[in-house]
Amino acid sequence: MRKIEHIGIAVKDLDLSNLLFEKLFGMPAYKSEVVESEGVNTSFFMNGPNKIELLAATNPESSIAKFLEKKGEGIHHIAFDVEDIVSEIARLQKEGFIILNTIPKKGADNKLVAFLHPKSTNGVLIELCQEIKD
Amino acid sequence: MRKIEHIGIAVKDLDLSNLLFEKLFGMPAYKSEVVESEGVNTSFFMNGPNKIELLAATNPESSIAKFLEKKGEGIHHIAFDVEDIVSEIARLQKEGFIILNTIPKKGADNKLVAFLHPKSTNGVLIELCQEIKD
Repeated sequence: MRKIEHIGIAVKDLDLSNLLFEKLFGMPAYKSEVVESEGVNTSFFMNGPNKIELLAATNPESSIAKFLEKKGEGIHHIAFDVEDIVSEIARLQKEGFIILNTIPKKGADNKLVAFLHPKSTNGVLIELCQEIKD
Repeated sequence: MRKIEHIGIAVKDLDLSNLLFEKLFGMPAYKSEVVESEGVNTSFFMNGPNKIELLAATNPESSIAKFLEKKGEGIHHIAFDVEDIVSEIARLQKEGFIILNTIPKKGADNKLVAFLHPKSTNGVLIELCQEIKD
C-alpha cells in the first residue's frame, strides 16, 4: 500500500455534488465515468497525490443506492494504491482480513480492484487498486 | 488544499486497532498522542504521502464517544493539508461552507485545525490542517 489512491463518497445527486466539490477544491472534476457493472455514476477530483471519487447510484439495486438508503450521504470507502494487487490480496488473507473478491475485478478509472470486508477492518470498507498498464 | 493529510477512523479499542492496522500496512503506528481537549487518544500510521489517524475516546462525553455510540466504528473525518488555514477558512466561508470553528485550534500532530460542518459537505466531516512551524 503506497498511498491513499482515492476516497469514495456516496452522493444522491452527482451534478449538485460536483458543484459542491468544485467549490471545495477550487477546481472542477477532471473526469466522470459510468461503471455499469456496479450501477454507479462517478466523478473524480484531483487533490495533489490523491483523488476524491463521488459515487451516485444509477439503479436502486446497486450497493451505493443501498448505502445511501441505510446511511445517507457520506464517506463510502478508502482506496489504497498497490503495486501488485494479487500478492497484496494473498498477504492480507494470510493476516486474517476477509477479501470480498479474491480475484481482482475491473473498476473505475482504469484500475484492477478488490475490496476488504468492513467486518475485518474496524468498519471501514477498504479497496485495493492497481493501475492497469496498457 | 494540497493533499489528503490524513483520514480519521473512530475505534473502540486503540490497542486492538493498532494491531489490526499494523497488519494492514505492514508497519506499526509511528506515534500516539492524547489530545485532552478533545477527549481522544490517537495513533498515526504513515502511508506514503498520507496518514491514517485512529481515534479512541478517553471519556464518554467526547465527540468520538458519541460518534461510536451512534454510528459504530468507521471513518470519522477526512483532513486536507492547507498552506494557510486562515485564508482557506475565509475562502470556504465565501463559498457557503459552514465552518465549525472559524478560529483555528491546536489539534493532534502539531497542527492548526478547523472543521467544516458535514451538513454543508455532503455528510462528510472535513478538517483543514496546517502544520505549525517552530
